[in-house]
Amino acid sequence: MTSLAVRYTAARTLTTGPAAPVPPGPGQVELAPAYVGICGTDLHIFHGDMDGRVKAPAVIGHEMSGHVVRVGPGVEGYAPGDPVTVMPLSWDGTCPACLNGHRHICQNLDFIGIDSPGAMQQRWTVPASTLIRLPESLALDRAALVEPTAVAVHDVGRAGVSDGDRVVVVGGGPVGLLIALVARASGGEVRVVEPNPQRRRLAEQLGLNTWDPGADDVPERVRDWTQDAGADIAFEVSGAEAGVQTAVDVLAVRGRLCLVAIHPRPRAVDLHRFFWRELTLIGARLYERQDFETAVRLIDEGTIPAEQLISRIVPLVDALDAFTSLESGGDVKVLVDCGNTSPEAAA
Amino acid sequence: MTSLAVRYTAARTLTTGPAAPVPPGPGQVELAPAYVGICGTDLHIFHGDMDGRVKAPAVIGHEMSGHVVRVGPGVEGYAPGDPVTVMPLSWDGTCPACLNGHRHICQNLDFIGIDSPGAMQQRWTVPASTLIRLPESLALDRAALVEPTAVAVHDVGRAGVSDGDRVVVVGGGPVGLLIALVARASGGEVRVVEPNPQRRRLAEQLGLNTWDPGADDVPERVRDWTQDAGADIAFEVSGAEAGVQTAVDVLAVRGRLCLVAIHPRPRAVDLHRFFWRELTLIGARLYERQDFETAVRLIDEGTIPAEQLISRIVPLVDALDAFTSLESGGDVKVLVDCGNTSPEAAA
Repeated sequence: MTSLAVRYTAARTLTTGPAAPVPPGPGQVELAPAYVGICGTDLHIFHGDMDGRVKAPAVIGHEMSGHVVRVGPGVEGYAPGDPVTVMPLSWDGTCPACLNGHRHICQNLDFIGIDSPGAMQQRWTVPASTLIRLPESLALDRAALVEPTAVAVHDVGRAGVSDGDRVVVVGGGPVGLLIALVARASGGEVRVVEPNPQRRRLAEQLGLNTWDPGADDVPERVRDWTQDAGADIAFEVSGAEAGVQTAVDVLAVRGRLCLVAIHPRPRAVDLHRFFWRELTLIGARLYERQDFETAVRLIDEGTIPAEQLISRIVPLVDALDAFTSLESGGDVKVLVDCGNTSPEAAA
Repeated sequence: MTSLAVRYTAARTLTTGPAAPVPPGPGQVELAPAYVGICGTDLHIFHGDMDGRVKAPAVIGHEMSGHVVRVGPGVEGYAPGDPVTVMPLSWDGTCPACLNGHRHICQNLDFIGIDSPGAMQQRWTVPASTLIRLPESLALDRAALVEPTAVAVHDVGRAGVSDGDRVVVVGGGPVGLLIALVARASGGEVRVVEPNPQRRRLAEQLGLNTWDPGADDVPERVRDWTQDAGADIAFEVSGAEAGVQTAVDVLAVRGRLCLVAIHPRPRAVDLHRFFWRELTLIGARLYERQDFETAVRLIDEGTIPAEQLISRIVPLVDALDAFTSLESGGDVKVLVDCGNTSPEAAA
């Protein structure tokens, strides 16, 4: 077959062209990606902000679903046609973080789709160790949301949300909404803080209560909501300094702030309040295998209504349009359809 | 008897004068303070920085040892002559923090010695619930360090120091040194970062290894020390923005930063590193009763060599000199001798 790939070639430029499939070596598997979601990091790459790390031309993309096409020597448990997603991490296994059991944040992590070739192509060869099996019952478009849902599962786990916790999610983009849904499924009472009215509307369609930080005095609302206690947990998913401040201001004594967003520059943080209320800030990055397995289950059983988060699906050749339209902030999750949506097409 | 008290009357002004002892009411105890330590918060009050909270004239002081003089109605378990110290906290018992079991950081906490009259006087009436019994074997000058040691015990507990942890203490003042000693007693390997050469010398006399942040590249030293892993735990006890940065920079993947110092203004914090390494920041304030009991034991058994931390002991009438000399930064802990050092003198 002629395989196509979308390549990041320079800031704000993607080109679609032929790519030679990579025969799977020992321990590797060749996949036919069905759908690939575009995430905030992909947008950063597209803007040229990560050119120090991503060397053009580069195939990007790491939120995917698809089928196995071929398995390399020594791979057991997978066969052509199996529906899978990929946990796109490759660790060295020898650094101090790995030796201490934190392989997912290996000090020399290879994030597949950023540091090595990604999924936005018709054939993708990856280590078999990255595969996560998908149930036949789970449609592949919905399954493309397993990766960001695994992020949310990891974040909610790091924050330790449990029954009856009052939870404020600052930032209602895709990851914020997924965190809100997973936190709710974990027993939390959730409020989402989001300035964009389209995103607030979607949150409300998902049954989430929202506040508009431009109109609502959020800390005051939280005091009313919690009878002056404050929230047990806040998630900072906005990436804005004002979002950090809100997340700190809403917390109860001994409250926990789970830091999810990327803040490229240092932020002014009210450390006095961390001291005064004995708050905890918890950094959360990526996921572990059990987070993926939980994410598959939550989407498959409908706890996460993935279909409601998918704004649009575009063909591979229109990937550039998908990236530029995402910049408007109106779309939540846009998927690229690689033209491999059935095992037959993939064969 | 004629009882004397030291009163804060205005910024940089203390006056010593007569004070009428307060007869102990129901549930109260009248004490004869023997020694009162001067802490950083007392210095802030002295500088006028806390005039919004401390209404002059005010008797301050909250690090003390002494004897019971009289017990009020309904007080059981204490008798005149008993050696005691005071956990200077009074909580309302009804706020959300109290109801959630965090009474020591009650949302309406009365910190005795700041929000209500303190120990720097010859008679001091406090709730019996604040008393911590001292063993007869423990000299009262050393016992005046129980309160700051309880702070250190609380901080080390919040940080969860355990056997083999590599610990960096940023700031080698009294609390920093006590944290270093308690962390070492908890099995930690400890390094103290302190720019003041006198303080570094004292730390070394206590058997602690030190780095000078003006001469040593501390993160580089930590990488060498930990074979590129980073420290498991850092304590920020400096109160400086550069100290926060150092504490963040030295941490290993999943490292924990225990925030002890007071930062009156927001600080620029490298939140990206919290995300990237899944770091945790833990605010720690004050102490609970078990922290005091542990502190009494650590000093009594000599694990904390309190006598080495006492720079000078001055009589009550020279309290002003003690405050001004502490500003030079050379002294570590200065005690005020209230002239009540034996039960007989107190009677």
